[in-house]
Amino acid sequence: MFMHNKRLMYTVRVAAPDPKLADLILEQFGGPDGELAAAMRYFTQGLAEIDPGRKDLLLDIATEEISHLEVVGSIVTMLNQGVKGQMAEGLEAAQLLANISGGTDSHTTALLYGGGVALTNSAGVPWSAAYVDSRTEPTADLRSNIAAEARAKIIYERLINLCDDPDVKDALGFLMTREIAHQKSFEKALYAIETNFPPGKLPGQAEFTNTYFNMSQGEGDMRGPWNQGEQWDFVEERERQAAVDGGDGSASVKLSRADAAIAKKVAARTMSDPSSDPITGAELGQGAQPS
Amino acid sequence: MFMHNKRLMYTVRVAAPDPKLADLILEQFGGPDGELAAAMRYFTQGLAEIDPGRKDLLLDIATEEISHLEVVGSIVTMLNQGVKGQMAEGLEAAQLLANISGGTDSHTTALLYGGGVALTNSAGVPWSAAYVDSRTEPTADLRSNIAAEARAKIIYERLINLCDDPDVKDALGFLMTREIAHQKSFEKALYAIETNFPPGKLPGQAEFTNTYFNMSQGEGDMRGPWNQGEQWDFVEERERQAAVDGGDGSASVKLSRADAAIAKKVAARTMSDPSSDPITGAELGQGAQPS
Amino acid sequence: MFMHNKRLMYTVRVAAPDPKLADLILEQFGGPDGELAAAMRYFTQGLAEIDPGRKDLLLDIATEEISHLEVVGSIVTMLNQGVKGQMAEGLEAAQLLANISGGTDSHTTALLYGGGVALTNSAGVPWSAAYVDSRTEPTADLRSNIAAEARAKIIYERLINLCDDPDVKDALGFLMTREIAHQKSFEKALYAIETNFPPGKLPGQAEFTNTYFNMSQGEGDMRGPWNQGEQWDFVEERERQAAVDGGDGSASVKLSRADAAIAKKVAARTMSDPSSDPITGAELGQGAQPS
Amino acid sequence: MFMHNKRLMYTVRVAAPDPKLADLILEQFGGPDGELAAAMRYFTQGLAEIDPGRKDLLLDIATEEISHLEVVGSIVTMLNQGVKGQMAEGLEAAQLLANISGGTDSHTTALLYGGGVALTNSAGVPWSAAYVDSRTEPTADLRSNIAAEARAKIIYERLINLCDDPDVKDALGFLMTREIAHQKSFEKALYAIETNFPPGKLPGQAEFTNTYFNMSQGEGDMRGPWNQGEQWDFVEERERQAAVDGGDGSASVKLSRADAAIAKKVAARTMSDPSSDPITGAELGQGAQPS
Amino acid sequence: MFMHNKRLMYTVRVAAPDPKLADLILEQFGGPDGELAAAMRYFTQGLAEIDPGRKDLLLDIATEEISHLEVVGSIVTMLNQGVKGQMAEGLEAAQLLANISGGTDSHTTALLYGGGVALTNSAGVPWSAAYVDSRTEPTADLRSNIAAEARAKIIYERLINLCDDPDVKDALGFLMTREIAHQKSFEKALYAIETNFPPGKLPGQAEFTNTYFNMSQGEGDMRGPWNQGEQWDFVEERERQAAVDGGDGSASVKLSRADAAIAKKVAARTMSDPSSDPITGAELGQGAQPS
Amino acid sequence: MFMHNKRLMYTVRVAAPDPKLADLILEQFGGPDGELAAAMRYFTQGLAEIDPGRKDLLLDIATEEISHLEVVGSIVTMLNQGVKGQMAEGLEAAQLLANISGGTDSHTTALLYGGGVALTNSAGVPWSAAYVDSRTEPTADLRSNIAAEARAKIIYERLINLCDDPDVKDALGFLMTREIAHQKSFEKALYAIETNFPPGKLPGQAEFTNTYFNMSQGEGDMRGPWNQGEQWDFVEERERQAAVDGGDGSASVKLSRADAAIAKKVAARTMSDPSSDPITGAELGQGAQPS
Repeated sequence: MFMHNKRLMYTVRVAAPDPKLADLILEQFGGPDGELAAAMRYFTQGLAEIDPGRKDLLLDIATEEISHLEVVGSIVTMLNQGVKGQMAEGLEAAQLLANISGGTDSHTTALLYGGGVALTNSAGVPWSAAYVDSRTEPTADLRSNIAAEARAKIIYERLINLCDDPDVKDALGFLMTREIAHQKSFEKALYAIETNFPPGKLPGQAEFTNTYFNMSQGEGDMRGPWNQGEQWDFVEERERQAAVDGGDGSASVKLSRADAAIAKKVAARTMSDPSSDPITGAELGQGAQPS
Repeated sequence: MFMHNKRLMYTVRVAAPDPKLADLILEQFGGPDGELAAAMRYFTQGLAEIDPGRKDLLLDIATEEISHLEVVGSIVTMLNQGVKGQMAEGLEAAQLLANISGGTDSHTTALLYGGGVALTNSAGVPWSAAYVDSRTEPTADLRSNIAAEARAKIIYERLINLCDDPDVKDALGFLMTREIAHQKSFEKALYAIETNFPPGKLPGQAEFTNTYFNMSQGEGDMRGPWNQGEQWDFVEERERQAAVDGGDGSASVKLSRADAAIAKKVAARTMSDPSSDPITGAELGQGAQPS
Repeated sequence: MFMHNKRLMYTVRVAAPDPKLADLILEQFGGPDGELAAAMRYFTQGLAEIDPGRKDLLLDIATEEISHLEVVGSIVTMLNQGVKGQMAEGLEAAQLLANISGGTDSHTTALLYGGGVALTNSAGVPWSAAYVDSRTEPTADLRSNIAAEARAKIIYERLINLCDDPDVKDALGFLMTREIAHQKSFEKALYAIETNFPPGKLPGQAEFTNTYFNMSQGEGDMRGPWNQGEQWDFVEERERQAAVDGGDGSASVKLSRADAAIAKKVAARTMSDPSSDPITGAELGQGAQPS
Repeated sequence: MFMHNKRLMYTVRVAAPDPKLADLILEQFGGPDGELAAAMRYFTQGLAEIDPGRKDLLLDIATEEISHLEVVGSIVTMLNQGVKGQMAEGLEAAQLLANISGGTDSHTTALLYGGGVALTNSAGVPWSAAYVDSRTEPTADLRSNIAAEARAKIIYERLINLCDDPDVKDALGFLMTREIAHQKSFEKALYAIETNFPPGKLPGQAEFTNTYFNMSQGEGDMRGPWNQGEQWDFVEERERQAAVDGGDGSASVKLSRADAAIAKKVAARTMSDPSSDPITGAELGQGAQPS
Repeated sequence: MFMHNKRLMYTVRVAAPDPKLADLILEQFGGPDGELAAAMRYFTQGLAEIDPGRKDLLLDIATEEISHLEVVGSIVTMLNQGVKGQMAEGLEAAQLLANISGGTDSHTTALLYGGGVALTNSAGVPWSAAYVDSRTEPTADLRSNIAAEARAKIIYERLINLCDDPDVKDALGFLMTREIAHQKSFEKALYAIETNFPPGKLPGQAEFTNTYFNMSQGEGDMRGPWNQGEQWDFVEERERQAAVDGGDGSASVKLSRADAAIAKKVAARTMSDPSSDPITGAELGQGAQPS
Repeated sequence: MFMHNKRLMYTVRVAAPDPKLADLILEQFGGPDGELAAAMRYFTQGLAEIDPGRKDLLLDIATEEISHLEVVGSIVTMLNQGVKGQMAEGLEAAQLLANISGGTDSHTTALLYGGGVALTNSAGVPWSAAYVDSRTEPTADLRSNIAAEARAKIIYERLINLCDDPDVKDALGFLMTREIAHQKSFEKALYAIETNFPPGKLPGQAEFTNTYFNMSQGEGDMRGPWNQGEQWDFVEERERQAAVDGGDGSASVKLSRADAAIAKKVAARTMSDPSSDPITGAELGQGAQPS
């Protein structure tokens, strides 16, 4: 069960309204690496988790992320406070338009969301559960969590670079720092699984686990620990990259006699005759005089 | 520049059409962890990458993933071959309906996509670029790639568990194995960055980097390396979890006098009077007789 | 700030796994009228709200809805518990396939989400913030909340009709009941605004506020309190329904001379000549012999 | 059957092209509270409705909303008329760029839609049927309609505040007014259902219908008619908010012996060992020297 | 302005309820090639069109498509009539579940939409304006219309193949036939533009207009009128396919000195050192003992 | 199998960074008519195609389009090169904000995607497979391809109009030209099918194939080859447009006795009584004193 305490996890002090900055910060409210995505990622994993240690960890951090969502939303709300009243009461139109349209998507935040806080990213795209990549397998999910924390850290870093209100900067710094701490916890939980690589249960096929296919060739080809050294079998002949199973590289299926007959009929009915030379619509459209 | 060789990277042999299995395998064609998502993740990173080693690595693997997309699509196409002809030529309706609707979303694949191959997941949801989490920062992106390979490995493992055509199983096994190999390469590239943690450039705030907030409490609380040991400051008093900056936990903004006046007007006009006891629509709807 | 207590708001007891029922119940986890939508609707409103009474009310109910989300997710998790293990460890394929594909979209829940709990509706469509219709204006938002509670109540009622596990039915009954209670609170808050109709600040144009246009005519035309009685001006002549402002019903704009000249050029270049009788591609495609 | 009369329902006179205003007004063309959403909401309800009075009402208003869609689309078209020709014929690039990019998303309207009218909101997000919340139950649907009309009224009010072309303002005023009239009709239809609360057929559980859970606590806690008075049971002790059914607040399911055995195996295989203290990837990434 | 006549454009007679067929037919209600997509495609084009002939044509057909939408929706409604009542009143659960879940997505239609008619495709995916490809350029738009009519014709053909209720088949046959007639009209309008190819105004670069690049090579290479004959320059040497402009095929930009310095710093800070051989997280996860 | 050659298909030379232009060009990277949509359209068709000529053609062009995707992505990357470094290293905030927010959605490209290249359109909307309209029927698919090439040509033309860097203009010109060439090939393939109209296999109903319904009437009615001439039966009486099958234009279904009884019960329970005149919530909200 969740409970709410009216004090924020971090005090929010905003020097002055700034709807453009508000719009950018929405990225961490309703964007793909934002706090809702984080909270829902860990919450769905926590619900389905049966390992007691991870279950507790996931619900701890999920709860913290919802609390961060509240901090981010409160920053946005404060930054939009001026425009919110102006939209509700009505200012002189030209003034109002100037206030809401300054080179970001803050116009939509003002118009559709009334200067409130919207579950969209900074381009106005609604949050989608497609951002949540929980798969109910811990060695995959923990890696997804590590990556998600890393991404979220970067977005906060960019926002800090874009912000010049010292108190907001400070709050963003706190939020950024917590992503670092969370990543560390998820790393510990991953490596506390005795064998966590390869993920899941099935082993790979021995002959393809250490192969590196040099698929992109030309000036710029490089070697490094990711494709050189004794563990790697480096394959660059194009011939050895195709049909690596030793077959002919075609796709086939055994059709029933009835299906085969149908397939033949379709093929005949819809053949593009390679020996024809038809007049086309495009040629008519260029003024060709069909004879 | 991309070139195409008509031989598949892995020969596809399907024992018999099976639209239900086809529908499940779509997960790796147009699903969030499928081959298009993988290819586009690495391709977009590769284009923007300036480190020569990583650029080469990303384009190598992106190219291989597109080749895998072709293998997966060819499997699906072969499994749908029967239904495809049947939809085109028309069978007796009851028969046709039985053939396409067997407890998965294969009915949509047959009806809308004609038994071809669709860029949807196994529930018919169209592929979305929201699945691609490239952020143009290598220590975040490489972690995203590692996680994505882990997830894809798991989905192939599940498909293998669901499949009983040995040749298809074999092809799925190859594809699964390559995810393992790719993960290994991305790990090498990540750790070949001298300092890759914390991601990005800004350091965290020292006082919050090693703090663990025990936000979820009660029976089931656990300690483990993710929140115990000397590196962690474990905080469980609720009082110490709120307003961790030492402030009062409220949100505030300094409004101009004009904006403050407007805000006051809005508040007065739209107040929900706490001392009222109004009759409501719901009460009317329950037959209340307002007096 | 949010805190979590490991006890659920309602104890969840499931008699036996049932992935098909799990899939249906996802409607209230990640569907448009589900608990996440409710929680986010009230949470976003609560953040931007300045009226102290409503702010408190919105955060109370938002917090309860997140607690409901946890209850619903726990039901789904329990119902999927069998399939979850089976997917992870691997059963015989035919058996596994039978278990996950029984006429709902549970196949996707098993395959992509591993028998966990997914933020999708019962058709597998990912949750979208497009479901959240907060507009930061209380007389509109409270009506949206009332409507949302009414919809959620109906979906729970349908799920109860579809469920025959008495304990699950009981938990669904609790959740349904809370929607009724919430609707009542939102109704009170709406009617505690002294003038709450029309919503917002601007009055309507007097001449169109009480007009009813009978746009759909023929057998089945009906009168009722929504279009009859002294308050309504009932307009059925088609002539009086068009150009109700008394103008000519056309659309016009004053272009600058330069723009007008450009518009003329485009028109001339792209005219579909009404006096022509061209041969078309379709006619070629039917075997017409153009002369 | 629908018929079309070339005269608009309201004459559209635009003083001068203004692609920025056009972009904002798209909110009511292809946005969530726009005319297409309204039309489709009532149209889908009308089709499935069996009550003759409501069926007629819904089709009347659906038809009017499509006519409004045409008015809104015509306003947008006129406002874009200049840019449309300029994109088609080509101006000097710097001039053209200046014309289409002025702080809203009008650049996309010009580039992708050629200065026509797009079914997107003001941020360029395509219209989605997720906006349509018809549920085929009249006491829920009518409340959704009332709320939708209230939201639409507000968006028109905001657009009027943003507009300084008196004729466009006038047309927007007409459209806003009609939302008021529609809301009144839907209210009449709702209250003309003898018992319309609670929505649907099933009654609530008596013990939870009048309970108010004070989930959010701290400075700012408020009482009002929504949670005080004799009808309400106000619960604020945290203990009484958890496991309100009197159980232990846990989630459980009875697994078959086979499933229980599988679950045990998964748990063992994937345990995060709480007594370990593993070196992690993050530590490697910080330069830790594993020993 | 639109008007509505209560008689359908085509009488709908359904022999018996069939929610599975209803679900399939949704494809033409809320699917990508369905009647709403058609209506909105022509309506948006018609609004922005300035050529009087095409404007009239587009509004004629848009209006007819909305009337078709009503016919399709009425078929679906009738097919769902049984389930709709059963969901509202409540049947015995097992019976109800059997009735709504028969191998298509009809379970969602019953649960979320109450047996009404939903703006989704047959997989439950909500309709999206992304289906509407109007671009406000007639030689492109008319081709899009021709293609859309062709696709819609095919989907109706498949539905007819899947249907065995003769009256429904007949209505579907009418709808299919109208797509043929509409395609013919759009073809006439396209070819009545004197020069309609290439589309738009700018000519192509002469040296690449008639070139065919044989990008996919191997067994299966074919020649036909699309790449042979005197109009085509057939290029198959790989060398002549890359950097066809005669340059070196690289991508470059002139950076300011400041930006160049920054780029250098980023590169140094984030280099993946190709000469390193780091221990990775994956290796730890396999039990490697780092030394 | 795909292979990659590090040389681009067209050399990319950019005179100076320009994030606004980059944002606009994203339209052809991740927009509906962009290169990914093209590549995936032809690739999915090619996989399912059985006609050897078309299969080869589709894979040739799909491969070329992926190569174009790389060219477009490289242009965008070069245009963003300045901002990319600035975001990574951090500039002074005001400067940075000015650099990324100039009246397009480039702020999102900078913030979320770090100045890389994003699979979105110019409004930041993520690419969706809903853009891909492959239906696995060649006479429909080839028309879709023709239309898609025409649309893509137009978007490139508009971008060329918006661009003043001569080298970028040149590259865009090459890409535009290739769309023309591709359209020509697809036209040839379509007309090389002996009978390609009507699409598919089923013929239309003779009585409705040549009918034109004049649905939109009033000033502006036009005749042209699309509705006049001997092939057309022009129907304008409204009476002849409704119920064209000669029935009564109603919708009916034969319900079982049990279902009919249920339907009756629902109707009675939920009737909106036309003879009532209820007080409504809106009236309460206007201060009505219910008696």
